[in-house]
Amino acid sequence: MSVHFKKLALIGIGLIGSSIALAARRHGLVDTIAIATRREETLDEARALALGDIYTLDAAEAVHGADLVILCAPVGAYEALAKAIAPALEPGAILSDVGSVKAHVHKVVGPYVPPNVAFIPGHPLAGTEHSGPGAGFAELFSGRWCVLTPGPEVPQEQTDKLVGFWRAMGSNVECMDAAHHDMVLAITSHVPHLVAYNIVGTVADLEADTKSEVIKFSASGFRDFTRIAASDPVMWRDVFLTNRDAVLEMLGRFLEDLSVLQRAVRTGDGPALEEMFTRTRAIRRSIINAGQETAAADFGRPHEAVPKSEEQR
Amino acid sequence: MSVHFKKLALIGIGLIGSSIALAARRHGLVDTIAIATRREETLDEARALALGDIYTLDAAEAVHGADLVILCAPVGAYEALAKAIAPALEPGAILSDVGSVKAHVHKVVGPYVPPNVAFIPGHPLAGTEHSGPGAGFAELFSGRWCVLTPGPEVPQEQTDKLVGFWRAMGSNVECMDAAHHDMVLAITSHVPHLVAYNIVGTVADLEADTKSEVIKFSASGFRDFTRIAASDPVMWRDVFLTNRDAVLEMLGRFLEDLSVLQRAVRTGDGPALEEMFTRTRAIRRSIINAGQETAAADFGRPHEAVPKSEEQR
Ligand SMILES: NC(=O)c1ccc[n+]([C@@H]2O[C@H](COP(=O)([O-])OP(=O)(O)OC[C@H]3O[C@@H](n4cnc5c(N)ncnc54)[C@H](OP(=O)(O)O)[C@@H]3O)[C@@H](O)[C@H]2O)c1
Ligand SMILES: NC(=O)c1ccc[n+]([C@@H]2O[C@H](COP(=O)([O-])OP(=O)(O)OC[C@H]3O[C@@H](n4cnc5c(N)ncnc54)[C@H](OP(=O)(O)O)[C@@H]3O)[C@@H](O)[C@H]2O)c1
Repeated sequence: MSVHFKKLALIGIGLIGSSIALAARRHGLVDTIAIATRREETLDEARALALGDIYTLDAAEAVHGADLVILCAPVGAYEALAKAIAPALEPGAILSDVGSVKAHVHKVVGPYVPPNVAFIPGHPLAGTEHSGPGAGFAELFSGRWCVLTPGPEVPQEQTDKLVGFWRAMGSNVECMDAAHHDMVLAITSHVPHLVAYNIVGTVADLEADTKSEVIKFSASGFRDFTRIAASDPVMWRDVFLTNRDAVLEMLGRFLEDLSVLQRAVRTGDGPALEEMFTRTRAIRRSIINAGQETAAADFGRPHEAVPKSEEQR
Repeated sequence: MSVHFKKLALIGIGLIGSSIALAARRHGLVDTIAIATRREETLDEARALALGDIYTLDAAEAVHGADLVILCAPVGAYEALAKAIAPALEPGAILSDVGSVKAHVHKVVGPYVPPNVAFIPGHPLAGTEHSGPGAGFAELFSGRWCVLTPGPEVPQEQTDKLVGFWRAMGSNVECMDAAHHDMVLAITSHVPHLVAYNIVGTVADLEADTKSEVIKFSASGFRDFTRIAASDPVMWRDVFLTNRDAVLEMLGRFLEDLSVLQRAVRTGDGPALEEMFTRTRAIRRSIINAGQETAAADFGRPHEAVPKSEEQR
């Protein structure tokens, strides 16, 4: 099925919004792209990058006449945005989003959606630690999953159309219940981010001397955590404010397990440690086999060659 | 100063041992490389890769006539290895190692070292999640730090020689006290590994259905943790058995901080979360500026192009 929209409105044009703009354009999925954002500077940046055709600070204006509208702002901004755009939504349009939590989005946006608009929240499981309109690239969604959480009232035909849009950008698509999405993401994404932010925070609190050594010697494992903990603070604040129960549930399990491991360290229980560390290898193997990760050592990070001057020292 | 050794003996020939063999050869730092390991298969693999000149299952034989001996086995094997090689150590030789903990190495190896041998424990802060003789590469140490922890009795001239050896392989070298090394590494490496093993373990315990979804959706953050948690289980068991106090101290701080973060999530304290998530960004910036990390998004992981067939779907 060939997917095509006349006018795509992107409300928010950061990493995800700009990647959608580039991918939709590259694959010829839309005629016109309208971009709305909050700040003048961001709009100027998007314009300089030629990400769209229409640029505005008024979300309702961008939405006017659009047959596909995607919210690409932090989830905490959604309710105000929904209120602002609702009167401008075209009958027959699809309203979607890319937020990292889903039950909350149904709750705060749902009530504003007119009955003749198909509300199909979504979440592309793709991203990097960078933000803003300059961070996007057309391949971001390629080979990654996109989860859609349409309510029961949405016509199948509209869901199929949105599925086709994401597939055309290279994504695998799966539909599921919003609450289930939030539980799975709590453990694959939200708790890992919380833990990474936390360990980097622990380091930030060390005495200045030790902290500078940690930075120097970070290649021994810590730097991987700092990548995750470099993600956008506002986006992540909103994730934890809006997926609290699932996060606390998964964090509770994590802490229980950590107590067991901590005791094994304290009592010097070698066999338990080795057993634990062996079990976890299989999971990475499965992820690589599922095509969700590179098998290259160290993520394929560059290892610089030895500078010539060092060779004969 | 030009560094040269007549005979280098590597006791253990996994990721680190094989990388030393390749780097020392490439940079012309040694005449002869003798390789000893525990298992016949590993020795055969090393021979097939032409990593050395002499291959033996007898560590003492490898050490015979060597002016540089480096232990490259898991730290738990060190005491037995020290006992075995001590009588074969050449007067004037340097004995070193690459173990991830240092105070324990002084404690268990030190007593076996003859007075005319310079014992200079070391730790290259470089590695990947892969193991075995086939995992090594000559550039592994390039641009990375190597920490040496010579005792006060070691002649400066011998330390300088070992420093020169690591520099010639591309490393930056720093000498410090063994206990200090262990505390810094506890937070930069040991606790991050423990936490990563733990979160992957939490997932391994989920019901089969959820677990397969976690694998599918792992690209949202979790997969980074699985890389760290794919490291060698025996090596890491030994790290936690031999650096217990520093690990428990740093884990304690981590857990205190996590309680604060957990409460902020529970009470929905947005400003506290945002403040915490903002603070941590600076640390990554410092690490990139220090040349210890790539600035490329997502570690420069490959993003596959959309297959042609998808484009018109
Ligand atoms: N980053 C990821 O890895 C990732 C992955 C999957 C899903 N997501 C989801 O994608 C969404 C956007 O994330 P992103 O990474 O693209 O963020 P980003 O790069 O930080 O961009 C955010 C965009 O939202 C706009 N915005 C922020 N606050 C706003 C407000 N109060 N009202 C209106 N617009 C506002 C910003 O506008 P101004 O610059 O004009 O203020 C900017 O255009 C979030 O809901 C996030 O959960 C992110
Ligand atoms: N991996 C890293 O990222 C990293 C980084 C810095 C330092 N280190 C340190 O480097 C050392 C080696 O790590 P690696 O990653 O190179 O390990 P590896 O790839 O698993 O290789 C370990 C080597 O040690 C040998 N060995 C294992 N148990 C032994 C025993 N009981 N007696 C004698 N030899 C034994 C193995 O021999 P067989 O195969 O013959 O059994 C193999 O040759 C460890 O002390 C580790 O702490 C590792």
